[in-house]
Amino acid sequence: MRVLGISGSLRAASINSALLRVAMRLAPPEVTLTVFPGVGGLPLFNPDLETQLPPQVSALHAAVAASDALLFASPEYAHGVTGSIKNTLDWLVGFEPFVYKHVAVLNASPRAHHADVALRETLKTMSAVIVEAASVSIPLLGAHLTEEGMVQDPMISSAIRGSLLALRDAVVRGQPGQGPASPLP
Amino acid sequence: MRVLGISGSLRAASINSALLRVAMRLAPPEVTLTVFPGVGGLPLFNPDLETQLPPQVSALHAAVAASDALLFASPEYAHGVTGSIKNTLDWLVGFEPFVYKHVAVLNASPRAHHADVALRETLKTMSAVIVEAASVSIPLLGAHLTEEGMVQDPMISSAIRGSLLALRDAVVRGQPGQGPASPLP
Repeated sequence: MRVLGISGSLRAASINSALLRVAMRLAPPEVTLTVFPGVGGLPLFNPDLETQLPPQVSALHAAVAASDALLFASPEYAHGVTGSIKNTLDWLVGFEPFVYKHVAVLNASPRAHHADVALRETLKTMSAVIVEAASVSIPLLGAHLTEEGMVQDPMISSAIRGSLLALRDAVVRGQPGQGPASPLP
Repeated sequence: MRVLGISGSLRAASINSALLRVAMRLAPPEVTLTVFPGVGGLPLFNPDLETQLPPQVSALHAAVAASDALLFASPEYAHGVTGSIKNTLDWLVGFEPFVYKHVAVLNASPRAHHADVALRETLKTMSAVIVEAASVSIPLLGAHLTEEGMVQDPMISSAIRGSLLALRDAVVRGQPGQGPASPLP
Protein backbone atom coordinates (compact mmCIF):
# COMPACT_ATOMS: atom_id res chain seq x y z
CA MET A 1 0.00 0.00 0.00
CA ARG A 2 1.40 3.33 -1.05
CA VAL A 3 0.81 6.49 1.00
CA LEU A 4 1.91 9.90 -0.27
CA GLY A 5 2.84 12.42 2.41
CA ILE A 6 2.32 16.11 1.66
CA SER A 7 3.79 18.80 3.91
CA GLY A 8 2.39 22.31 3.79
CA SER A 9 5.60 23.95 5.00
CA LEU A 10 8.72 24.69 2.98
CA ARG A 11 10.85 25.54 6.01
CA ALA A 12 13.87 23.24 6.29
CA ALA A 13 13.26 22.81 10.03
CA SER A 14 9.49 22.33 9.63
CA ILE A 15 8.01 20.10 12.33
CA ASN A 16 5.30 19.05 9.88
CA SER A 17 7.87 17.81 7.38
CA ALA A 18 9.76 16.15 10.25
CA LEU A 19 6.53 14.46 11.34
CA LEU A 20 6.11 12.95 7.87
CA ARG A 21 9.72 11.76 7.81
CA VAL A 22 9.20 10.11 11.20
CA ALA A 23 6.02 8.50 9.85
CA MET A 24 8.15 7.03 7.04
CA ARG A 25 10.36 5.41 9.67
CA LEU A 26 7.44 4.12 11.73
CA ALA A 27 5.29 2.83 8.88
CA PRO A 28 4.24 -0.82 9.18
CA PRO A 29 5.92 -3.14 6.65
CA GLU A 30 2.91 -3.28 4.33
CA VAL A 31 2.75 0.51 4.03
CA THR A 32 5.22 2.43 1.89
CA LEU A 33 5.13 6.11 2.75
CA THR A 34 6.92 8.61 0.54
CA VAL A 35 6.86 12.38 0.94
CA PHE A 36 6.10 14.41 -2.18
CA PRO A 37 9.23 16.49 -2.72
CA GLY A 38 7.79 19.02 -5.16
CA VAL A 39 5.38 21.22 -3.15
CA GLY A 40 7.82 24.13 -3.22
CA GLY A 41 8.46 23.78 -6.93
CA LEU A 42 4.83 23.99 -8.04
CA PRO A 43 3.87 27.15 -9.89
CA LEU A 44 1.03 29.17 -8.41
CA PHE A 45 -2.24 27.74 -9.64
CA ASN A 46 -3.54 29.30 -12.83
CA PRO A 47 -6.54 27.74 -14.58
CA ASP A 48 -5.18 29.02 -17.89
CA LEU A 49 -2.29 26.54 -17.54
CA GLU A 50 -4.56 23.52 -17.18
CA THR A 51 -4.66 22.90 -20.94
CA GLN A 52 -0.90 22.32 -20.97
CA LEU A 53 0.20 21.30 -17.50
CA PRO A 54 3.60 22.43 -16.21
CA PRO A 55 5.85 19.40 -15.61
CA GLN A 56 5.90 20.01 -11.85
CA VAL A 57 2.10 19.68 -11.80
CA SER A 58 2.24 16.54 -13.92
CA ALA A 59 4.65 15.10 -11.34
CA LEU A 60 2.16 15.91 -8.57
CA HIS A 61 -0.66 14.30 -10.51
CA ALA A 62 1.40 11.18 -11.20
CA ALA A 63 2.37 10.85 -7.53
CA VAL A 64 -1.25 11.23 -6.38
CA ALA A 65 -2.53 8.81 -9.01
CA ALA A 66 0.05 6.21 -7.94
CA SER A 67 -0.90 6.42 -4.26
CA ASP A 68 -3.59 4.58 -2.34
CA ALA A 69 -3.93 7.30 0.28
CA LEU A 70 -2.61 10.75 1.16
CA LEU A 71 -1.23 11.94 4.49
CA PHE A 72 -1.25 15.70 5.08
CA ALA A 73 0.75 17.62 7.67
CA SER A 74 0.59 21.38 7.41
CA PRO A 75 1.03 24.31 9.77
CA GLU A 76 -1.32 27.21 10.42
CA TYR A 77 -0.22 30.67 9.25
CA ALA A 78 -2.22 33.68 10.51
CA HIS A 79 -5.30 31.57 11.33
CA GLY A 80 -5.34 30.05 7.87
CA VAL A 81 -3.95 27.24 5.76
CA THR A 82 -0.54 27.87 4.26
CA GLY A 83 -0.46 29.23 0.74
CA SER A 84 1.71 26.26 -0.19
CA ILE A 85 -0.74 23.55 0.88
CA LYS A 86 -3.72 25.32 -0.71
CA ASN A 87 -1.78 25.87 -3.90
CA THR A 88 -1.02 22.15 -4.01
CA LEU A 89 -4.71 21.34 -3.54
CA ASP A 90 -5.78 23.95 -6.13
CA TRP A 91 -3.85 21.91 -8.72
CA LEU A 92 -5.77 18.77 -7.64
CA VAL A 93 -9.31 20.18 -7.83
CA GLY A 94 -11.09 18.19 -10.50
CA PHE A 95 -8.20 15.74 -10.92
CA GLU A 96 -10.13 12.50 -11.26
CA PRO A 97 -7.74 10.14 -9.36
CA PHE A 98 -8.03 12.43 -6.32
CA VAL A 99 -11.77 11.86 -6.02
CA TYR A 100 -12.65 9.34 -3.26
CA LYS A 101 -8.99 9.12 -2.27
CA HIS A 102 -8.53 8.20 1.38
CA VAL A 103 -6.77 11.01 3.21
CA ALA A 104 -5.63 11.72 6.75
CA VAL A 105 -4.81 15.13 8.22
CA LEU A 106 -2.22 15.29 10.99
CA ASN A 107 -2.19 18.37 13.21
CA ALA A 108 1.11 19.06 14.96
CA SER A 109 -0.27 22.10 16.74
CA PRO A 110 -3.50 21.09 18.49
CA ARG A 111 -4.17 24.61 19.76
CA ALA A 112 -4.48 25.75 16.16
CA HIS A 113 -7.84 24.85 14.65
CA HIS A 114 -8.56 27.34 11.84
CA ALA A 115 -6.19 25.74 9.34
CA ASP A 116 -7.20 22.21 10.32
CA VAL A 117 -10.89 23.01 9.84
CA ALA A 118 -10.27 24.84 6.55
CA LEU A 119 -8.07 22.07 5.16
CA ARG A 120 -10.70 19.44 5.98
CA GLU A 121 -13.47 21.56 4.46
CA THR A 122 -11.51 21.86 1.20
CA LEU A 123 -10.65 18.15 1.15
CA LYS A 124 -14.31 17.24 1.67
CA THR A 125 -15.35 19.65 -1.07
CA MET A 126 -12.86 17.90 -3.37
CA SER A 127 -14.57 14.57 -2.53
CA ALA A 128 -11.65 13.11 -0.62
CA VAL A 129 -12.56 10.55 2.03
CA ILE A 130 -11.21 11.88 5.32
CA VAL A 131 -10.26 8.96 7.57
CA GLU A 132 -11.06 10.38 11.00
CA ALA A 133 -9.37 7.59 12.95
CA ALA A 134 -6.14 8.43 11.13
CA SER A 135 -6.47 12.20 11.49
CA VAL A 136 -4.89 12.84 14.84
CA SER A 137 -3.44 15.75 16.76
CA ILE A 138 0.16 15.24 17.78
CA PRO A 139 1.36 18.03 20.10
CA LEU A 140 4.80 18.70 18.62
CA LEU A 141 4.82 22.50 18.44
CA GLY A 142 7.01 23.73 21.26
CA ALA A 143 8.06 20.22 22.25
CA HIS A 144 11.48 20.75 20.61
CA LEU A 145 11.89 17.10 19.74
CA THR A 146 14.31 15.84 17.15
CA GLU A 147 13.11 13.20 14.72
CA GLU A 148 14.93 10.59 16.77
CA GLY A 149 13.19 12.01 19.84
CA MET A 150 9.79 11.57 18.18
CA VAL A 151 10.61 7.98 17.28
CA GLN A 152 11.69 7.30 20.88
CA ASP A 153 8.70 9.06 22.49
CA PRO A 154 6.16 6.29 23.24
CA MET A 155 3.09 8.56 23.01
CA ILE A 156 4.13 10.26 19.81
CA SER A 157 5.38 7.18 18.03
CA SER A 158 2.27 5.21 18.91
CA ALA A 159 0.03 8.07 17.73
CA ILE A 160 1.84 8.12 14.39
CA ARG A 161 1.77 4.33 14.05
CA GLY A 162 -1.91 4.32 14.99
CA SER A 163 -2.67 6.89 12.30
CA LEU A 164 -0.95 4.82 9.62
CA LEU A 165 -2.70 1.64 10.73
CA ALA A 166 -6.09 3.37 10.67
CA LEU A 167 -5.35 4.73 7.21
CA ARG A 168 -4.30 1.28 6.03
CA ASP A 169 -7.44 -0.31 7.44
CA ALA A 170 -9.66 2.28 5.76
CA VAL A 171 -8.04 1.69 2.40
CA VAL A 172 -8.32 -2.09 2.78
CA ARG A 173 -12.00 -1.80 3.68
CA GLY A 174 -12.77 0.82 1.02
CA GLN A 175 -13.38 0.18 -2.63
CA PRO A 176 -10.57 2.05 -4.39
CA GLY A 177 -11.87 4.43 -7.00
CA GLN A 178 -15.46 3.59 -6.16
CA GLY A 179 -16.01 5.79 -3.17
CA PRO A 180 -15.95 5.12 0.53
CA ALA A 181 -16.85 1.84 2.12
CA SER A 182 -19.85 2.06 4.38
CA PRO A 183 -19.84 2.59 7.29
CA LEU A 184 -16.62 4.58 7.64
CA PRO A 185 -14.98 4.80 11.08
CA MET B 1 -4.71 58.65 -1.37
CA ARG B 2 -3.17 55.47 -2.71
CA VAL B 3 -5.04 52.18 -2.72
CA LEU B 4 -3.35 48.95 -3.76
CA GLY B 5 -5.61 46.34 -5.34
CA ILE B 6 -4.71 42.68 -4.92
CA SER B 7 -6.42 39.96 -6.96
CA GLY B 8 -6.33 36.37 -5.77
CA SER B 9 -6.78 34.90 -9.25
CA LEU B 10 -4.14 34.51 -11.94
CA ARG B 11 -6.63 33.65 -14.67
CA ALA B 12 -6.48 36.14 -17.55
CA ALA B 13 -10.29 36.30 -17.67
CA SER B 14 -10.67 36.52 -13.87
CA ILE B 15 -13.75 38.48 -12.81
CA ASN B 16 -11.96 39.47 -9.62
CA SER B 17 -9.10 41.04 -11.58
CA ALA B 18 -11.67 42.66 -13.88
CA LEU B 19 -13.48 44.04 -10.83
CA LEU B 20 -10.28 45.71 -9.64
CA ARG B 21 -9.61 47.17 -13.10
CA VAL B 22 -13.14 48.57 -13.16
CA ALA B 23 -12.56 50.03 -9.69
CA MET B 24 -9.50 51.80 -11.13
CA ARG B 25 -11.77 53.44 -13.72
CA LEU B 26 -14.45 54.39 -11.19
CA ALA B 27 -12.16 55.68 -8.44
CA PRO B 28 -12.92 59.21 -7.24
CA PRO B 29 -10.29 61.80 -8.25
CA GLU B 30 -8.63 61.87 -4.85
CA VAL B 31 -8.09 58.09 -4.87
CA THR B 32 -5.38 56.48 -6.98
CA LEU B 33 -5.95 52.77 -7.28
CA THR B 34 -3.29 50.54 -8.75
CA VAL B 35 -3.40 46.75 -8.99
CA PHE B 36 -0.35 44.87 -7.76
CA PRO B 37 0.92 43.05 -10.85
CA GLY B 38 3.22 40.58 -9.12
CA VAL B 39 0.97 38.09 -7.28
CA GLY B 40 1.70 35.37 -9.83
CA GLY B 41 5.44 36.00 -9.69
CA LEU B 42 5.83 35.58 -5.95
CA PRO B 43 7.70 32.49 -4.82
CA LEU B 44 5.86 30.17 -2.47
CA PHE B 45 6.33 31.44 1.09
CA ASN B 46 9.30 29.98 2.87
CA PRO B 47 10.34 31.42 6.25
CA ASP B 48 13.93 30.44 5.48
CA LEU B 49 13.96 33.10 2.72
CA GLU B 50 12.96 35.93 5.07
CA THR B 51 16.56 36.75 5.94
CA GLN B 52 17.28 37.62 2.31
CA LEU B 53 14.01 38.48 0.61
CA PRO B 54 13.49 37.53 -3.04
CA PRO B 55 13.11 40.68 -5.20
CA GLN B 56 9.48 39.87 -6.01
CA VAL B 57 8.70 39.91 -2.29
CA SER B 58 10.56 43.17 -1.81
CA ALA B 59 8.40 44.62 -4.60
CA LEU B 60 5.27 43.48 -2.75
CA HIS B 61 6.51 44.99 0.50
CA ALA B 62 7.34 48.29 -1.21
CA ALA B 63 3.91 48.46 -2.85
CA VAL B 64 2.13 47.75 0.45
CA ALA B 65 4.28 50.22 2.36
CA ALA B 66 3.52 52.94 -0.22
CA SER B 67 -0.25 52.44 -0.02
CA ASP B 68 -2.79 53.96 2.37
CA ALA B 69 -5.20 51.07 2.01
CA LEU B 70 -5.56 47.67 0.32
CA LEU B 71 -8.47 46.39 -1.74
CA PHE B 72 -8.76 42.61 -2.06
CA ALA B 73 -10.77 40.69 -4.64
CA SER B 74 -10.27 36.96 -4.65
CA PRO B 75 -12.29 33.93 -5.73
CA GLU B 76 -13.16 30.84 -3.73
CA TYR B 77 -11.56 27.55 -4.78
CA ALA B 78 -12.96 24.34 -3.27
CA HIS B 79 -14.51 26.15 -0.28
CA GLY B 80 -11.23 27.88 0.53
CA VAL B 81 -9.11 30.90 -0.25
CA THR B 82 -6.94 30.59 -3.33
CA GLY B 83 -3.38 29.45 -2.80
CA SER B 84 -2.26 32.62 -4.55
CA ILE B 85 -3.99 35.08 -2.21
CA LYS B 86 -2.88 33.20 0.90
CA ASN B 87 0.67 32.99 -0.39
CA THR B 88 0.65 36.76 -0.89
CA LEU B 89 -0.57 37.25 2.67
CA ASP B 90 1.93 34.75 4.07
CA TRP B 91 4.68 37.08 2.81
CA LEU B 92 3.04 39.99 4.67
CA VAL B 93 2.65 38.34 8.09
CA GLY B 94 4.77 40.36 10.48
CA PHE B 95 5.57 43.02 7.87
CA GLU B 96 5.29 46.13 10.01
CA PRO B 97 3.73 48.54 7.45
CA PHE B 98 0.85 46.06 6.99
CA VAL B 99 -0.20 46.34 10.64
CA TYR B 100 -3.26 48.62 11.10
CA LYS B 101 -3.53 49.04 7.34
CA HIS B 102 -7.09 49.76 6.25
CA VAL B 103 -8.34 46.98 3.99
CA ALA B 104 -11.52 46.14 2.13
CA VAL B 105 -12.56 42.73 0.84
CA LEU B 106 -14.76 42.58 -2.26
CA ASN B 107 -16.70 39.39 -2.90
CA ALA B 108 -17.72 38.85 -6.52
CA SER B 109 -19.52 35.62 -5.71
CA PRO B 110 -21.93 36.29 -2.82
CA ARG B 111 -23.05 32.66 -2.63
CA ALA B 112 -19.49 31.72 -1.69
CA HIS B 113 -18.72 32.46 1.95
CA HIS B 114 -15.95 30.10 3.06
CA ALA B 115 -13.15 32.01 1.33
CA ASP B 116 -14.56 35.39 2.34
CA VAL B 117 -14.74 34.36 6.01
CA ALA B 118 -11.27 32.78 5.93
CA LEU B 119 -9.68 35.78 4.21
CA ARG B 120 -11.18 38.15 6.78
CA GLU B 121 -10.06 35.93 9.67
CA THR B 122 -6.48 35.97 8.37
CA LEU B 123 -6.53 39.73 7.75
CA LYS B 124 -7.82 40.34 11.29
CA THR B 125 -5.17 38.04 12.70
CA MET B 126 -2.56 40.08 10.82
CA SER B 127 -3.94 43.24 12.52
CA ALA B 128 -5.37 44.78 9.38
CA VAL B 129 -8.32 47.11 9.92
CA ILE B 130 -11.19 45.68 7.87
CA VAL B 131 -13.42 48.52 6.67
CA GLU B 132 -16.82 46.84 6.70
CA ALA B 133 -18.61 49.63 4.82
CA ALA B 134 -16.15 49.14 1.98
CA SER B 135 -16.28 45.33 2.01
CA VAL B 136 -19.22 44.61 -0.24
CA SER B 137 -20.62 41.70 -2.21
CA ILE B 138 -20.96 42.40 -5.91
CA PRO B 139 -22.78 39.59 -7.71
CA LEU B 140 -20.63 39.26 -10.82
CA LEU B 141 -20.17 35.49 -11.05
CA GLY B 142 -22.41 34.25 -13.83
CA ALA B 143 -23.43 37.77 -14.84
CA HIS B 144 -21.13 37.59 -17.90
CA LEU B 145 -20.46 41.30 -17.89
CA THR B 146 -17.56 42.89 -19.70
CA GLU B 147 -15.61 45.57 -17.87
CA GLU B 148 -17.46 48.19 -19.90
CA GLY B 149 -20.69 46.47 -18.89
CA MET B 150 -19.75 46.74 -15.21
CA VAL B 151 -18.98 50.42 -15.61
CA GLN B 152 -22.33 50.98 -17.33
CA ASP B 153 -24.37 48.90 -14.83
CA PRO B 154 -25.79 51.42 -12.33
CA MET B 155 -26.00 48.96 -9.41
CA ILE B 156 -22.53 47.52 -9.89
CA SER B 157 -20.77 50.80 -10.59
CA SER B 158 -22.38 52.48 -7.59
CA ALA B 159 -21.46 49.54 -5.34
CA ILE B 160 -17.83 49.82 -6.46
CA ARG B 161 -17.79 53.63 -6.10
CA GLY B 162 -19.41 53.29 -2.68
CA SER B 163 -16.74 50.83 -1.57
CA LEU B 164 -13.95 53.19 -2.59
CA LEU B 165 -15.59 56.16 -0.90
CA ALA B 166 -16.06 54.19 2.32
CA LEU B 167 -12.43 53.08 2.19
CA ARG B 168 -11.32 56.68 1.59
CA ASP B 169 -13.44 57.94 4.50
CA ALA B 170 -12.04 55.31 6.85
CA VAL B 171 -8.47 56.22 5.96
CA VAL B 172 -9.17 59.94 6.37
CA ARG B 173 -10.76 59.33 9.77
CA GLY B 174 -8.13 56.81 10.87
CA GLN B 175 -4.73 57.61 12.29
CA PRO B 176 -2.30 56.10 9.79
CA GLY B 177 0.13 53.77 11.45
CA GLN B 178 -1.49 54.24 14.82
CA GLY B 179 -4.35 51.84 14.55
CA PRO B 180 -8.02 52.30 13.84
CA ALA B 181 -9.97 55.43 14.61
CA SER B 182 -12.71 54.85 17.12
CA PRO B 183 -15.51 54.10 16.51
CA LEU B 184 -15.09 52.37 13.15
CA PRO B 185 -18.14 51.99 10.91
